[in-house]
Amino acid sequence: MPSSLSRNHDRGPVRPTPQASALLRPEAMTRITGGFWAERRRVNARASIPQGPALLESAGNLHNLALAAGTTTGEYRGDLPFLDSDVTKWLEAAAWQLGDPAEADAEGLPDRIEELTALLAAAQEDSGYLNSWFQVIRPKERFEDLRWGHELYCAGHLIQAAVALHRTTGARGLLDIAVRFADHIDDTFGPGRPLDGICGHAEIETALVELYRETGERRYLDLAGYFVDRHGHGLLNVGERHASAPGPAYCQDRVPVREARNVEGHAVRQLYLLAGATDVATETGEPELREAVVRLWDAMTATKTHLTGGLGARHEWEDFGDPYELPTDRTYCETCAAVASVQWSWRMALMTGRARYSDLVERTLYNGFLAGVSLDGERWLYVNPLQVRDGYTDEGTDQTSRRTRWFRCACCPPNVMRLLASLPAYCASTDGSGLQIHQYVTGSLSAQVGGEDIGVDLVTGYPVDGRIELTLTCTSGTPWTLSVRLPHWSRTCSVTVDGEPVAPDIEGGWARLRRSWSPGQRIVLELDVEARLTRADPRVDAVRGSVAIERGPLVYCLEQTDHPGGGLDDVTLDATRPLRSTVRPDLLGGVVTVEGAGPRGPPAARSWWPYSSHGTPDPAAPELNLTAVPYYAWANREDGAMRVWIPLR
Amino acid sequence: MPSSLSRNHDRGPVRPTPQASALLRPEAMTRITGGFWAERRRVNARASIPQGPALLESAGNLHNLALAAGTTTGEYRGDLPFLDSDVTKWLEAAAWQLGDPAEADAEGLPDRIEELTALLAAAQEDSGYLNSWFQVIRPKERFEDLRWGHELYCAGHLIQAAVALHRTTGARGLLDIAVRFADHIDDTFGPGRPLDGICGHAEIETALVELYRETGERRYLDLAGYFVDRHGHGLLNVGERHASAPGPAYCQDRVPVREARNVEGHAVRQLYLLAGATDVATETGEPELREAVVRLWDAMTATKTHLTGGLGARHEWEDFGDPYELPTDRTYCETCAAVASVQWSWRMALMTGRARYSDLVERTLYNGFLAGVSLDGERWLYVNPLQVRDGYTDEGTDQTSRRTRWFRCACCPPNVMRLLASLPAYCASTDGSGLQIHQYVTGSLSAQVGGEDIGVDLVTGYPVDGRIELTLTCTSGTPWTLSVRLPHWSRTCSVTVDGEPVAPDIEGGWARLRRSWSPGQRIVLELDVEARLTRADPRVDAVRGSVAIERGPLVYCLEQTDHPGGGLDDVTLDATRPLRSTVRPDLLGGVVTVEGAGPRGPPAARSWWPYSSHGTPDPAAPELNLTAVPYYAWANREDGAMRVWIPLR
Repeated sequence: MPSSLSRNHDRGPVRPTPQASALLRPEAMTRITGGFWAERRRVNARASIPQGPALLESAGNLHNLALAAGTTTGEYRGDLPFLDSDVTKWLEAAAWQLGDPAEADAEGLPDRIEELTALLAAAQEDSGYLNSWFQVIRPKERFEDLRWGHELYCAGHLIQAAVALHRTTGARGLLDIAVRFADHIDDTFGPGRPLDGICGHAEIETALVELYRETGERRYLDLAGYFVDRHGHGLLNVGERHASAPGPAYCQDRVPVREARNVEGHAVRQLYLLAGATDVATETGEPELREAVVRLWDAMTATKTHLTGGLGARHEWEDFGDPYELPTDRTYCETCAAVASVQWSWRMALMTGRARYSDLVERTLYNGFLAGVSLDGERWLYVNPLQVRDGYTDEGTDQTSRRTRWFRCACCPPNVMRLLASLPAYCASTDGSGLQIHQYVTGSLSAQVGGEDIGVDLVTGYPVDGRIELTLTCTSGTPWTLSVRLPHWSRTCSVTVDGEPVAPDIEGGWARLRRSWSPGQRIVLELDVEARLTRADPRVDAVRGSVAIERGPLVYCLEQTDHPGGGLDDVTLDATRPLRSTVRPDLLGGVVTVEGAGPRGPPAARSWWPYSSHGTPDPAAPELNLTAVPYYAWANREDGAMRVWIPLR
Repeated sequence: MPSSLSRNHDRGPVRPTPQASALLRPEAMTRITGGFWAERRRVNARASIPQGPALLESAGNLHNLALAAGTTTGEYRGDLPFLDSDVTKWLEAAAWQLGDPAEADAEGLPDRIEELTALLAAAQEDSGYLNSWFQVIRPKERFEDLRWGHELYCAGHLIQAAVALHRTTGARGLLDIAVRFADHIDDTFGPGRPLDGICGHAEIETALVELYRETGERRYLDLAGYFVDRHGHGLLNVGERHASAPGPAYCQDRVPVREARNVEGHAVRQLYLLAGATDVATETGEPELREAVVRLWDAMTATKTHLTGGLGARHEWEDFGDPYELPTDRTYCETCAAVASVQWSWRMALMTGRARYSDLVERTLYNGFLAGVSLDGERWLYVNPLQVRDGYTDEGTDQTSRRTRWFRCACCPPNVMRLLASLPAYCASTDGSGLQIHQYVTGSLSAQVGGEDIGVDLVTGYPVDGRIELTLTCTSGTPWTLSVRLPHWSRTCSVTVDGEPVAPDIEGGWARLRRSWSPGQRIVLELDVEARLTRADPRVDAVRGSVAIERGPLVYCLEQTDHPGGGLDDVTLDATRPLRSTVRPDLLGGVVTVEGAGPRGPPAARSWWPYSSHGTPDPAAPELNLTAVPYYAWANREDGAMRVWIPLR
């Protein structure tokens, strides 16, 4: 563990300043030592992240930076202007990974970080500008095409990587590069500066607030606030929406954030922008901006969120779609949108102290996010549908429902890597009066509450079982409040302290116990993770008459491979029969399957016309045993149909 | 009525040669004199078609041709390479309209036709080549970008217009232009010619068969067969599908027609290609090609067709989508696809003699097609969804669910015009033994059966009522078979001859009466057009637990404007209560409304999370009276929500 590592609470994204209006302060886990996420993070640290540099090399990203640095020759590779961001997102992932003591030196990570930092330093111009696409291909057009250029977006990811590396190691090399670019941007954009504009793809906003937090330079916060508020005024001049143009909502340039009534446009852009807006509101305490993000989050979850936490209903322009437009087969649910949703919701949790935000973080992490990477950490999904039909044909694209080794537009893989690497930062928080546990992982943390050191060990088999055991490893006699999140789906919960049932204060999704604690005390929370059936608001037309199987925080799905002898287009579930759960250590890295049964639907249409009189009796159909597996584990066996929502018998 | 008008049976599209293998021969109605379609055709003749030239002028299409002719100067207008086809599709519409005696001279149509013919003649090069986009903008790139260039597609529409004008008037001016271009194409493409290629957008295939029928030149049929069969071999070299490229299925270049198992890719392209393939199979009698189109039509209707006859599930690449992927809100159902479906199905009906093809023609005409044009004939829909949500936002694009005066890509309006103008040709046919009535309209026709003249007058209030009265105006004593189509949705039917019930042979959707007829005899067919509820195959996930109201051939929908005090996202229908029908001469040009009732769904989500436990009881909801109107008439009042499929209580 490098001696330069700073305190735990500084080791992760989103570190509000002392003067920020956040109700909660993040406390990173010191370690995640076992259980579900330790395994996912081990694969991330040992397979996904180490393979990054070679993939970036073969895809051309590093070559392109070398072109900008003048250290190589040849053609620019790839036809997208934001390829540098794949590199800096990988760097951010690597930086957070360095903060994990057990894995910090794995696979020569510090060397790779040093090499890429040197490459970026060599590519950066004296002005601070750094973007290989424009430096190599369009040197005269800098900041001229803010709609599609992605220069500020790439700058944002550079800044985030630099902040991450500085937080985990104290190393200034990458931070100096980021500061130079940020200063160049600050000299270029904003009131009294040459340009009044925003980036077509939000990201710079949240990055600048993080840079403010890391450097204390207030002007970065001001610039972030400027970029947030200049959205929605038509500065991008994208023109009307038509068949080959997305219109201003696509880049959140149709209506200002403060006036918006619902999320809209490109899901990842919208979510990054709202993460930035929340960062600004957190630091400035502005009520209007705060109300806007609270309102938009509620509208998004109530009307535009899939059961998996997936966001973005349309392939077309990667768009959120209309309220309750939540198709199963053709939904987009980009992996990056899941990452962005977790990032935004965590900021909301810290700003407001409300549990619902961490409820969505949990749901997204275990489902819509985690499905984005294969169990071996080597294959990816860009889109995360809730159904793949028997006749599925969309093969061979970034947006296919089949896992892919890497993408032409490889935004998702390093995004998964950076979130998994920074996961310990999303689990706990403190306020003046106590400690809040947001996510249940096996590990340990230490924090300060009211000036006193406290330490907690967590042990849990979650989500396989619902028992979470917290042991206090360090605490003074001063009273403080332990708050544990009660997930909204848990029908029951119980809490014991040293084996004795207690009645915590239950409030807004939190169970709170305030007392004078002693080291060695053991608090056990029991949640009900038994399998259950879930239905949707009837306005979600796409899943009417269907249910989903959930178990704890996990959404389940049916996969073709478990149901030989037919497809999945015609299965049904008889909800009057009990579900059974089976622990299967052998299957998909160890899962609990959930079994049910129901008749297959009527035989495939024998008529040319698939519509018939209401009331026509269906022919008798054979019973089919159904085996559901966790959604995060789908698409790790042979290709085939999949469905989350199962029609009721 | 111009004296040059040829026999009725030659006045319309699709005139198989005497040696063709078609089981049926088309017989155009002499006139459609009253009733439903007479009114729609009157609006087409008096509003839509007359406004065409001015709209083509203001959109730049005529200017562009004048640029090619060298008779004007300036910039090419519009950024699409197929703008000439809007002009020739309008010309085709005008040509068929000339065949309607009552409207033939309306609004100086012959003068407009002459002017546009002269413009095309002036623009055509000595070689025969004619395409203003390439002549003006890319003169060196002719036939170099067959993927996107649309040159053969535009040639196809020119040929169709020329055939139409020659069939209705005998005028050769436009036909000579078309023949010169067709000869140039025949000199350029095919075995032993310089180029081996196909057009990215099918259309030339069916046009060349029609030109063969009109001129007797066999090489046009051979060239059509070549183009049909060269699809599916990767000649277009479109590359892999990815985010900004559609892949080879888009242009039917993934698999040859003869091997395809289902329709795929861009719906209009696929349908035009299959119309052409059917034309080729009809003329050549090739069993393999015939089997392919029969198989593809059945697969399409059973798995990829909306209740309205609408085709094309995805906005993205205007694609057919996967089997049973039939979303209501985001379906595409391009108006042009409905036109193309009618054209293909009619060819199938003639080739095979089977009634199902005309069933789909009827369904499409009355629903998915007719919704494409407003009741006043002046505003259009490019896409024809089956649902518009309460929170609908996609305004201001060609692909919006709001009616538009004209489009940037104005393919649909002249397509509607040409189909309505040629509608008399889709109603009846003969074979050696009798006459078949495919569509029920008020009008008259005369035909020859076995060398004997027969004449029939049809009078019907269809689709308001189900009574169709046929009076024989001319017949010899030689026995022949009168066949009337029994729509697949009619639960009952009865036939009388001169008031006496008879028992026709019922076979494959036809009711057949063979006898020696006398002039003046009256045959009455009674179909059951009462309102009914229809459900979908359960594999159509998008409409599970919902029913649609149909009445006769009409699909119904709910519109916001008839349901004040709330949206349509939460309505339900109580199917145990009877439907009521009300004749409303005042409403929407005269419709029968269908009324039902059901409780509104639960109040809009008060929770941030729209998913809940299966079995949670819904709160009591107020009863709502529902008023359904014919789908074809929707979007003719104020903007608002709409839905065809209504959730069951």
